[in-house]
Amino acid sequence: MLVESRIRMSVNDRRPPFYLGIDLGGTNIKSGVVDDAGQPLSSVRLPTLVEQGPEAGADRLAEAGRRAVAASGVDWSEIAAVGLGSPGTMDIQAGLLLEPPNLPSWEHFAIRQAVADRLKKPTIFQNDANAAAYGEFWVGAGRGTASLVMFTLGTGIGGGIIDHGRIIEGRHSHGAECGHMLVQMENGRRCSCGRFGHLEAYASATSLVKRATEALAREPDSALHKRLAANDLTSRAVSEAAEAGDPLARRLMRETARYLAVGAVNLMLTVDPDIVLFGGGMISAGPKFLEDIRSDVRDLALPVPAEKTRIDYAQLGGDAGFIGAAGCARLGRAR
Amino acid sequence: MLVESRIRMSVNDRRPPFYLGIDLGGTNIKSGVVDDAGQPLSSVRLPTLVEQGPEAGADRLAEAGRRAVAASGVDWSEIAAVGLGSPGTMDIQAGLLLEPPNLPSWEHFAIRQAVADRLKKPTIFQNDANAAAYGEFWVGAGRGTASLVMFTLGTGIGGGIIDHGRIIEGRHSHGAECGHMLVQMENGRRCSCGRFGHLEAYASATSLVKRATEALAREPDSALHKRLAANDLTSRAVSEAAEAGDPLARRLMRETARYLAVGAVNLMLTVDPDIVLFGGGMISAGPKFLEDIRSDVRDLALPVPAEKTRIDYAQLGGDAGFIGAAGCARLGRAR
Repeated sequence: MLVESRIRMSVNDRRPPFYLGIDLGGTNIKSGVVDDAGQPLSSVRLPTLVEQGPEAGADRLAEAGRRAVAASGVDWSEIAAVGLGSPGTMDIQAGLLLEPPNLPSWEHFAIRQAVADRLKKPTIFQNDANAAAYGEFWVGAGRGTASLVMFTLGTGIGGGIIDHGRIIEGRHSHGAECGHMLVQMENGRRCSCGRFGHLEAYASATSLVKRATEALAREPDSALHKRLAANDLTSRAVSEAAEAGDPLARRLMRETARYLAVGAVNLMLTVDPDIVLFGGGMISAGPKFLEDIRSDVRDLALPVPAEKTRIDYAQLGGDAGFIGAAGCARLGRAR
Repeated sequence: MLVESRIRMSVNDRRPPFYLGIDLGGTNIKSGVVDDAGQPLSSVRLPTLVEQGPEAGADRLAEAGRRAVAASGVDWSEIAAVGLGSPGTMDIQAGLLLEPPNLPSWEHFAIRQAVADRLKKPTIFQNDANAAAYGEFWVGAGRGTASLVMFTLGTGIGGGIIDHGRIIEGRHSHGAECGHMLVQMENGRRCSCGRFGHLEAYASATSLVKRATEALAREPDSALHKRLAANDLTSRAVSEAAEAGDPLARRLMRETARYLAVGAVNLMLTVDPDIVLFGGGMISAGPKFLEDIRSDVRDLALPVPAEKTRIDYAQLGGDAGFIGAAGCARLGRAR
């Protein structure tokens, strides 16, 4: 599988210097060239093929990068720097993967240097959720704000915090690991990490499906039974059934919105940003879900932030990762 | 009541410029002169007399400041700037109190300007818990770190976050309002703010006494019954009884440590600082209580921060507020 696209933009509208962003995921690598104003000029997708190991993986990261540059029409010499986003765990400053659950057998791999060696460009390394948050801050839903928190909702829940233009990476590369925030310290649900009461155990797509499966045992009439029987009970199935009026599905989405509002409020009480964004697959649930989150935030937050903090969906979709990674390269170069 | 002290320091050891720190509380104003290295040269305490209103209050803030300068032996002309810390709610940038629960009738008072007008010095305004955290960062238990989170444990729970030397004030002056973090979203205890499930509702001194009172109804043998009967059941009474071996008191302190560990872990998953500090009256509970918090943090946190984040008590005690406020004045002047 290879998907390539060149984004139409007249050569005159392109603002040099250019940056190459690479977003590494457990399934796909996405890469693109981004100009100095944050406009993507190309995007390329390659399968990661995790099982081939980290050295082959670094080859593919470089290959994805080269193809993105070729697809953009920008000359290789015009690429000022490379930004690489990756799932954790990691040591960001050292450019090192630690024990990333989504990249088995890539443990303790010096990934930044491996990519820099192959591409021969200054290479900046960043957590993928931090990079996506930076992308939204730079040219997405957070453009023009001074500070932003973003939750990325998928199999798990990732997070990114930007304060006055700086990514809060944290001292141990664990900044904005918002999915593992404790929101139910007594009788909490079990999280994918093995601990209990974490936000992710309530509000990720995986957790929504799990809660739906449990609830179906008590609700014989829900339209979701058909999807469960067809082995096709996904978070999207739940949100679609809610949209179509199924009471159980509606209740599950309502609960999920409340859990996410709890996550938002806890960040509003620590970082207190201009805006809290939600991104990732689950935001396909649409505007009603967002309105539910907003309403619960107003209910749960202290009065001033409840009134003033913007709550919104992310805008860059699956491109946020490589655009943000390119933005990190741009930031790194400016330092 | 007026308490004054001049801290002995030879004139040669004093490093100019000098800063005046003022820490406004609901009961007392504490003020002192601090040198450029963060050494306090004097400290003065005056009652706030909140009920006399904000203009009289500003007179007393100025009076406390003047006395602190007089007690320090520093000439008034050598004071470069003034830092004022105050309980919230507030608009930090505007120098404005909003609706501070501890300063009734001082609502919407332009307190920074009122103090600046009286003292005729550049005046910086800051949240009191942020200022205390900055004091510990500058010259206390966080000296030498790059980032710090501090919980101040008293009637309520205040918080302060320092990241790379910057106070995270938040966009709406609600940065580090950690006491109102949601840690029990279902069946949570009622907080002083009227909402439910906040950290403060579990782990403040007030909440500890409330939990003790509830538990005593079920435990006829506890030594704490005497204190309750004498209307003297304080958080210190509980920690002393725990120290003396009372099983109920021991259990209550153990639970409190766990709640505080939850608070620490949630900040380790957002800001991921070098160090998490606990300050305020409750740390008189001593080293066993700190060890309990540390042990619970190791149990609850993700592996890397669990191993590497330092958890400690604050060191500046009741002086953290004015020292930190002076530090904020120094920071503000450097900008």
